[in-house]
Amino acid sequence: MTSPSELRKDHFTDRWVIIASERSKRPDDFRPAKPEKNKDGPPAFCPFCQGNEMKTPPEVFAIRPNGRGPDLPGWRVRVVPNKFPALTRGTLPQRKTRGIYECMDGIGVHEVIIESPDHERELSDLPVDQVRDVFWTYQERIRSIESEAQYQYVQLFKNKGTAAGASLSHPHSQLVATPIIPKRIKEEIYCSDRFFKRNRECIFCRTLREDRADGERLIAANAHFVVTAPFASRFPFEMRVLPLRHSPHFAAAREEELQGLAEIMRVVIGRLKEVLGDPPYNILLHQAPTPNHAQKVWPQIESISHWHLEVIPVLTRVAGFEWGTGFYINPVQPEAAAKFLRAL
Amino acid sequence: MTSPSELRKDHFTDRWVIIASERSKRPDDFRPAKPEKNKDGPPAFCPFCQGNEMKTPPEVFAIRPNGRGPDLPGWRVRVVPNKFPALTRGTLPQRKTRGIYECMDGIGVHEVIIESPDHERELSDLPVDQVRDVFWTYQERIRSIESEAQYQYVQLFKNKGTAAGASLSHPHSQLVATPIIPKRIKEEIYCSDRFFKRNRECIFCRTLREDRADGERLIAANAHFVVTAPFASRFPFEMRVLPLRHSPHFAAAREEELQGLAEIMRVVIGRLKEVLGDPPYNILLHQAPTPNHAQKVWPQIESISHWHLEVIPVLTRVAGFEWGTGFYINPVQPEAAAKFLRAL
Repeated sequence: MTSPSELRKDHFTDRWVIIASERSKRPDDFRPAKPEKNKDGPPAFCPFCQGNEMKTPPEVFAIRPNGRGPDLPGWRVRVVPNKFPALTRGTLPQRKTRGIYECMDGIGVHEVIIESPDHERELSDLPVDQVRDVFWTYQERIRSIESEAQYQYVQLFKNKGTAAGASLSHPHSQLVATPIIPKRIKEEIYCSDRFFKRNRECIFCRTLREDRADGERLIAANAHFVVTAPFASRFPFEMRVLPLRHSPHFAAAREEELQGLAEIMRVVIGRLKEVLGDPPYNILLHQAPTPNHAQKVWPQIESISHWHLEVIPVLTRVAGFEWGTGFYINPVQPEAAAKFLRAL
Repeated sequence: MTSPSELRKDHFTDRWVIIASERSKRPDDFRPAKPEKNKDGPPAFCPFCQGNEMKTPPEVFAIRPNGRGPDLPGWRVRVVPNKFPALTRGTLPQRKTRGIYECMDGIGVHEVIIESPDHERELSDLPVDQVRDVFWTYQERIRSIESEAQYQYVQLFKNKGTAAGASLSHPHSQLVATPIIPKRIKEEIYCSDRFFKRNRECIFCRTLREDRADGERLIAANAHFVVTAPFASRFPFEMRVLPLRHSPHFAAAREEELQGLAEIMRVVIGRLKEVLGDPPYNILLHQAPTPNHAQKVWPQIESISHWHLEVIPVLTRVAGFEWGTGFYINPVQPEAAAKFLRAL
């Protein structure tokens, strides 16, 4: 059985790319002549709205207080497979070579977390309990996927607004599980490990301590989380949401932590809207690779990895200089951004 | 003397960021309420057009066949400092620490290469000799900057269209020289070096040979260059322009090679316009760090580095999954893209 997509390795950079033929497009799909769908406005039809459950692939999970059967109305949070998945479920893929090139079947998981039945209400408009339930759903899905040995990393993310990559405006997040540990995650582990060896301390715990003492980059804080403008923010008004308690895996966050996360995310996303006028944004979860795999490669993973969220407002464009060098040019000083966003 | 911008190191990833206060922006500059300037349409006034020479900073170089003085009409190609530079000239910056953080003054060079006096004619519309003169100007500027010891890398790039990051529509390229070797360049050197140690051959020379034999990803070729769709293309219709002759530095390209480059770039950019309807795009030069620095760190640099151009049409959006993992999802198979773009 072959997967409809393929993972290919760029041997000039060790970077993996998903060639997603399921989403296959022809040049005409990219021509500007084609009238653009108004994706941010109210859609004619939304497959994520309550009552349209039959228009998505069958659900894999839902919070359904009324106890009705799957794919029926009455849910609070609902998870379905992505209709146009970048990766599809399968058994452990083998690395194959094609001449000098390396590739493998596009095995993985690609799911959509529909954050509420309400089309109009964004994260910061939902009740705290609803936001907490969304994060709790993330945990449920991560645990379920981690129990399957072939997946090495689970990436949770949210694209809000067309410019941030969202193709549907109904509030939702996505989950992609990959059969290899992404390069970006390896880089983070490499740097945390080096810091730990020198300082016998987690780099995130230390950063948290110094940023709180300094105060200049603080945006928000509560009993469980601190939100800061990262010292080397790539983008204007970028935020990092860091739990006070050191923990490598999001799925291990406790009930009171999920509640605290829901509270602080509502506040900072609300601030983003106030200060910047409802900008498109991405939210990303960073965490350790799935426990099976992480422990094998990095026995010290529990000490060096510390899950967190990144919030990236989409306000500037990545251009030639960034693509060429991996450098970023940020026209807003992180300390100034923090001052504007501060909601302490 | 301090620079108006600052280089900051992200200690979680070893990535450097330029905090460019010269370009400093307030939240209102990002609010969508602000009517967007029609940057792709004809502008009311263009500082890059002939006759407006006094509206740019004084030129640092020009091809001026009529022999008139600087900053007067009559030029074919003109180079001026960027009016809002990401980095500014200065003496070798020292790395400084601020608590656990590392930073340095934003020392560097940021120049604009105005590709022709004609506002309307893009790369593929200009005569071959004019395009060759643009590349020759790149060489002149690179050589001049390389003679200053504080710059370790020179990045040449072109942003075409607002979506690709261009703020002015008059055809131009940019040059940024940095006081450190960018991470992306180090990664490429690392992979090339590993390949060379295993195979006693340059990874680019080998890729060229295999791609030509295979043929599936070929887009264009002439006596000096081959253009292919990279095997692990991150973006739809991405192209790599590789010189047949192994050479680490663009400034060492010979006259007949510049001519060949001009010819093939006109063809492939023309194809891009035909097939995709004049999309925004980025062109990036990849080359070895400046000879002084490269030789010191990598004595084998001459064998392993091979300059080339990347052409990236801006057709999709980088979203949460890409930011989180460093993976890319490409909805167009590179072999299919090559077939559409092929102009052999």
